[in-house]
Amino acid sequence: MESMAEKQPSKIHQPPEIIVLGPPLVFRTYDKEFSSRFRVLRPWESPLPLPQFLAAEAQNTQAALVSGVVQLTAAVLHHLPSVRLVVTTSAGVNHIDLVECRRRGIAVANAASIFSVDVADLAVGLLLDVLRRISAGNRFVKTGLWPKQKSYRLGFKLGGKKVGIVGLGSIGLYVAKRLEGFGCAISYSSRKEKPSVSYAFCPDIRTLAANSDILVICCALTEQTHHMINREVLLALGKEGVIVNIARGAVVDEKELVSCLQNGEIGGAGLDVFENEPSVPKELYELDNVVMSPHCAVFTEESMRDVYELMCGNLEAFFSNKPLLSLLPEE
Amino acid sequence: MESMAEKQPSKIHQPPEIIVLGPPLVFRTYDKEFSSRFRVLRPWESPLPLPQFLAAEAQNTQAALVSGVVQLTAAVLHHLPSVRLVVTTSAGVNHIDLVECRRRGIAVANAASIFSVDVADLAVGLLLDVLRRISAGNRFVKTGLWPKQKSYRLGFKLGGKKVGIVGLGSIGLYVAKRLEGFGCAISYSSRKEKPSVSYAFCPDIRTLAANSDILVICCALTEQTHHMINREVLLALGKEGVIVNIARGAVVDEKELVSCLQNGEIGGAGLDVFENEPSVPKELYELDNVVMSPHCAVFTEESMRDVYELMCGNLEAFFSNKPLLSLLPEE
Repeated sequence: MESMAEKQPSKIHQPPEIIVLGPPLVFRTYDKEFSSRFRVLRPWESPLPLPQFLAAEAQNTQAALVSGVVQLTAAVLHHLPSVRLVVTTSAGVNHIDLVECRRRGIAVANAASIFSVDVADLAVGLLLDVLRRISAGNRFVKTGLWPKQKSYRLGFKLGGKKVGIVGLGSIGLYVAKRLEGFGCAISYSSRKEKPSVSYAFCPDIRTLAANSDILVICCALTEQTHHMINREVLLALGKEGVIVNIARGAVVDEKELVSCLQNGEIGGAGLDVFENEPSVPKELYELDNVVMSPHCAVFTEESMRDVYELMCGNLEAFFSNKPLLSLLPEE
Repeated sequence: MESMAEKQPSKIHQPPEIIVLGPPLVFRTYDKEFSSRFRVLRPWESPLPLPQFLAAEAQNTQAALVSGVVQLTAAVLHHLPSVRLVVTTSAGVNHIDLVECRRRGIAVANAASIFSVDVADLAVGLLLDVLRRISAGNRFVKTGLWPKQKSYRLGFKLGGKKVGIVGLGSIGLYVAKRLEGFGCAISYSSRKEKPSVSYAFCPDIRTLAANSDILVICCALTEQTHHMINREVLLALGKEGVIVNIARGAVVDEKELVSCLQNGEIGGAGLDVFENEPSVPKELYELDNVVMSPHCAVFTEESMRDVYELMCGNLEAFFSNKPLLSLLPEE
């Protein structure tokens, strides 16, 4: 495709200008390297409120680098009249007003599937942790309980379990492939059946839950998937069932999840994402069958390097009128 | 093979007698079921010291069920003159004096490879936990640090890592198969090369460590493997290297391991086994890059059921002069 960059006024020795909103973790990690390649506008270092900062500094800025937790609303975009490219460092784009971007002719580039492997790995890690009680065992040993209590509670075998993958995109496929290697039986739900895979397709999420020992949530957060994992689905999963969510918190009705976990209506949960991050329901703090991580599924040294290079590649492609590396396809 | 059971005196309605030493966890879990199939001698419930108990009660007992943590020495066997079968609930048999068993014509049946899948799964779980900081992240979230500190330390990607498997028996093979699914490159050391596998063979453990990002210890504890993972091997693994031990504590020189971890000479460790269980080096309590479990790699509900059935199968085969299900082969 054609880049949407307008012809740059020729400013010799002047690197292209980008506005950074967030700033994303990858930006902080590679700040020096980014800053040697681009002229970086840093609203978070200014005493001005964001709208004033943008009005004063960013009226001609053509590209924005945006963290996955910043809400890029129509109101913010209104203050960035020249922006023609938004690069975000997340795979999900539910924080960006895509309709407004389209209306303004703004291309959006995301992290594509660069994080998918790491996210799938964390899903498996959380699942193994819940089933085999690893975090709880680590605490048992590190608090000196082992010599006192001698025996430790039995865990559960992963092999032979029926796993339902909710959303068979690149992350879901990597999760499925890994769990096949552990001897799990895979089925999935998805907007539509994937003819390229041999896993059993189950379009109805409640039926998928009823037929599964484990649900792994890998779908995007959309209006359709918001609170898709509700009380009815959780009860269908059942009291030995385990849920893993590495997608977005709001795919699950968190209040109902907490209640099901407190009452033993499901067996356990491995959660990297929550509805109101960084707030986490305190009721889960004391539950050994709940393992939580701070939305860090994508955060490895290696993926930060990879996404840094992808972001720079997108920005440089844009400024030299070349095709973007990870342009978000229009729906 | 022929069972070594002597002809039973015909005691109608009298179930066969077994002496239980330990008692193993599987015995405690299935005590009722075991006791309905066998007449069980229970030295741990007697006020008598073990030798006196055995002298009084077990002179005609032909079969012993022995936990994996009981030392079955020549001295103990001396008090069990009629025993012709020892069934142990562990895969490892380093707690049994095999030479003395052979001298006395005692057959030994172990858990064979019944636990291998669960042990391999825990190895992968510990490794993912160390690399992706899952236990530490769980603590970070559950102690309410997330909203205060916002960002969490980056972890490391599993994919692309070079993994050296130390000991390619059934556990090692399951670990290798699982880690292949995560995109790791596998090589291994072993007493001899396995022509049936395509992984690179590296007979020298120091060279294997030097060429690996991760070492997974899966070998038996023998005189040859005692402290095989010494300081030199750990330094060869290097300061970003991770070691996982689900074999036996004493395969690793624990004192050197602690020192390497404290000084950052290796990158992290996932440990299910220790030299002096249930004692664990207290220096490791505070290290987030060390994940420990209380020698629970085999302890799942499912494997307990499986080993219960195997143990009963061995005992019943013995008492009915049929071939044992998991006779330990003579070396």
